[in-house]
Amino acid sequence: MFLSAASRPSSTSSLDSLFQYIEEHQDEFVQKLGEWVSVQSDSSTPALWGEVERVLSMTADRITAMGGVVERADIGAQQLPGGQSVRRPPVILAQFHMDPEKATLCIYGHVDVQPAKKEDGWDTDPYTLTELNGNLYGRGATDNKGPVLAWLHAIETYQATSQELPVNIKLIIEGLEEVGSDGLEELTQRCKDSFFSDVDYIVISDNVWATRRPALTYGTRGSSYFFVEVEGPKTDLHSGVFGGSVHEPMMDLIALLDSLLGHTGKILVPGLNEMVAPVTKEERKLYEGIHFDLEETKLETGVQRFLQDSKEGVLMARWRYPSLSIHGIEGAVSIQGPQTVIPKQVVGKFSIRLVPHMEPATVERQVKEHLHGVFAQLNSPNRLRVTSSVGAWPWLADLKDPQYVAGCRAVEVVFGVEPELIREGSTIPIAHDFHKVTGKSVMMLPIGGHDDGEHSQKEKISRYNFIQGTKLFVAYFHELSMLHKSLPQIQCNI
Amino acid sequence: MFLSAASRPSSTSSLDSLFQYIEEHQDEFVQKLGEWVSVQSDSSTPALWGEVERVLSMTADRITAMGGVVERADIGAQQLPGGQSVRRPPVILAQFHMDPEKATLCIYGHVDVQPAKKEDGWDTDPYTLTELNGNLYGRGATDNKGPVLAWLHAIETYQATSQELPVNIKLIIEGLEEVGSDGLEELTQRCKDSFFSDVDYIVISDNVWATRRPALTYGTRGSSYFFVEVEGPKTDLHSGVFGGSVHEPMMDLIALLDSLLGHTGKILVPGLNEMVAPVTKEERKLYEGIHFDLEETKLETGVQRFLQDSKEGVLMARWRYPSLSIHGIEGAVSIQGPQTVIPKQVVGKFSIRLVPHMEPATVERQVKEHLHGVFAQLNSPNRLRVTSSVGAWPWLADLKDPQYVAGCRAVEVVFGVEPELIREGSTIPIAHDFHKVTGKSVMMLPIGGHDDGEHSQKEKISRYNFIQGTKLFVAYFHELSMLHKSLPQIQCNI
Repeated sequence: MFLSAASRPSSTSSLDSLFQYIEEHQDEFVQKLGEWVSVQSDSSTPALWGEVERVLSMTADRITAMGGVVERADIGAQQLPGGQSVRRPPVILAQFHMDPEKATLCIYGHVDVQPAKKEDGWDTDPYTLTELNGNLYGRGATDNKGPVLAWLHAIETYQATSQELPVNIKLIIEGLEEVGSDGLEELTQRCKDSFFSDVDYIVISDNVWATRRPALTYGTRGSSYFFVEVEGPKTDLHSGVFGGSVHEPMMDLIALLDSLLGHTGKILVPGLNEMVAPVTKEERKLYEGIHFDLEETKLETGVQRFLQDSKEGVLMARWRYPSLSIHGIEGAVSIQGPQTVIPKQVVGKFSIRLVPHMEPATVERQVKEHLHGVFAQLNSPNRLRVTSSVGAWPWLADLKDPQYVAGCRAVEVVFGVEPELIREGSTIPIAHDFHKVTGKSVMMLPIGGHDDGEHSQKEKISRYNFIQGTKLFVAYFHELSMLHKSLPQIQCNI
Repeated sequence: MFLSAASRPSSTSSLDSLFQYIEEHQDEFVQKLGEWVSVQSDSSTPALWGEVERVLSMTADRITAMGGVVERADIGAQQLPGGQSVRRPPVILAQFHMDPEKATLCIYGHVDVQPAKKEDGWDTDPYTLTELNGNLYGRGATDNKGPVLAWLHAIETYQATSQELPVNIKLIIEGLEEVGSDGLEELTQRCKDSFFSDVDYIVISDNVWATRRPALTYGTRGSSYFFVEVEGPKTDLHSGVFGGSVHEPMMDLIALLDSLLGHTGKILVPGLNEMVAPVTKEERKLYEGIHFDLEETKLETGVQRFLQDSKEGVLMARWRYPSLSIHGIEGAVSIQGPQTVIPKQVVGKFSIRLVPHMEPATVERQVKEHLHGVFAQLNSPNRLRVTSSVGAWPWLADLKDPQYVAGCRAVEVVFGVEPELIREGSTIPIAHDFHKVTGKSVMMLPIGGHDDGEHSQKEKISRYNFIQGTKLFVAYFHELSMLHKSLPQIQCNI
């Protein structure tokens, strides 16, 4: 499917000394990751942003020490519920020496982390990087401090071995990714004609492989979040006193939610499935090549049977078809003691994952029309209000894009296998946003393992992935430059 | 429908001096209620039971001072979640001088209260009885300290005016009613052949009128509470990663809950409605006579339209037909941040109010069979578990029972109108339990107004109801004795 190792340009042999440097300095790299993990840069509440700023400063200092030029871009202030506002941690925009002859790669990463406390169920202290059986456990190890450091180590490797960086490097490193990257899209917009103007490729390493095989990620699902509010009486009512005589808001809501989804997982909102791009023959082939083990996934998750029978069916359902999940119902929170209340108002919450060519605004309209139509049939005197948030677009890259070819080759060089070409079922708005705003090619190049447990109490990156990932980045710089020189003759054969 | 005032035995004129005493001592009675309300006898947690014991002691001391004989009956210990146990507050069993020639009336009441804090939204301090526009606001004013004191004041009135009590009086006063009367049924069982052996009638004044008119209550609905647990994967799953490929427990639960109830409020569980006693012609007439204002209730509750169009329809739906209310869903509680999780396990909670001749065990079987049948059609690999609790029987008294005749007459004497014969839609297990265990006649004789707001942040009893209620009890003692003398000639003409 790809160019074989034999046909690779001979210049890849120059990578050997780079790889050797990485092997010899792997303990230092791991130690550096330990330093970064020890900073509790949890961005979940503004009260903790001091530590986010600290790790951003460490990042900036490191880049400066390596000869990079750093700008701390202001991304405004956050409004707090109390009415005050607090300055957001800056975004780091950095660049190394720019050679107009070379391609320019912009690397995105983030150094904030999800919350973590030992008592949440961690076996180890989440802020002390701990190596066990080849795995480096700690909050942020894989999401996303490990990959960010791997990029910096890749640059360091070229410098330390006195090899010229084969591509121009820019970096955009933020500290609010885990809370939705507030301010980043505006910044991208603002820097479209400055920082981003000479960028050729944007690469993101903020996800993980799908299986035990290395991967390139070419798509993510979008997301629309819905709140279905049914409001009835002025106050909660006693179910003994009023039960049987009122249209209970909960009864209406259950009927509304039950109208969304068939038992086969099919979304029943009219018009929605018709927007989904049909599967092509070539695309189907991609899924056949993925080493996804259905039985192993069943064991890992405790899911006894998936909605689809085949590996391909399950992967497509997760990556390239829309899905609808009902997350919960608000409104029973104020109950005290035995809960025999008729809640006066309930809010059902569900989200829909979007795929090409679904548009968030159209989906919102379809969902609202559908729910209001169902509600009309209930003949209820209650008030229905459907609101929507998020509305993140799906993202899908062109696999024929040169940086995917470079990514394929780099994987082959480092791991000796072709990468799996995968999509993410979850929503990572930055990929779509970067592409939409800058018009540049975007690729996701994960180095984390499929079992890294981002956001969980077992977050880790393996030493193998961390070190081989650093080699992958080194090789990727190289392959991208090679490709850039010889364009357009070489293409990824997909 | 009832004997007219003209045909009443002339001896009722002896009530005048009793009524006069009550009128003249009403400020004292209100002051006493203030003292009782000031005791924060919230039984919701064992940590607060000291105050429950204090008000029980005040009650016992008062009865002793009036010449009653008091026994503090032990009702065992409560197991705490931590494994320890704590002694329950005793139940007061009391009796005044027993004359074998007289009928014996046993009065039930409770002196514990629901929780109350000023900051919950009270306009006044909940533990400072406050008179505003003829209403006495305070926690326990109507539920149930006011009525218990009214019984004691009724006895005091006979004693203070040197009139012999026309019936033998026994009292059973507890301190755990608001948390389910733990231990009371066992005590009743234990005292069936001792304390209860010579009791002719049991009277309970622990509810309120249905409208602005005085009432006798002859029935309560029972209750069965159900937990529908659907368990799927081992852990919560990310809806982005797995959405579309798994049978989500929430999706199954919504379908299960939606199968319970039609949009007209009809319960769809097969067999359930067939157990409901048919409405008789006589019964329908009772509902026509109730001064229930549908439009006023709409305004008070904010319910724009009831499921039934007529007054009779709404009242029957609330009192004499079963109802099913869905109260909430557990399982989304552990979510942090943006809630895009697929919960691994969800528990839907609903209750069914039972009426004659529904049996809790049969209802439980029908509901379980129905839900398991629906679940089988979902073809889901998840696990379903339906459990049930409460299982309180409905209660229905015979309106031809002598004490209802006495109650009717007493209402006529005091208020000059016939009482409304009402049922309660809510569940008050003691009425059924007393009848079931002792085999004695039970009546509920409310003195609280329909707008007293038991359990709410506006709990009150009006001075009018408190004082007229005391007269009602005085008259009730009298009418019961008259009736007892002349049985079986006089019957309530229903």
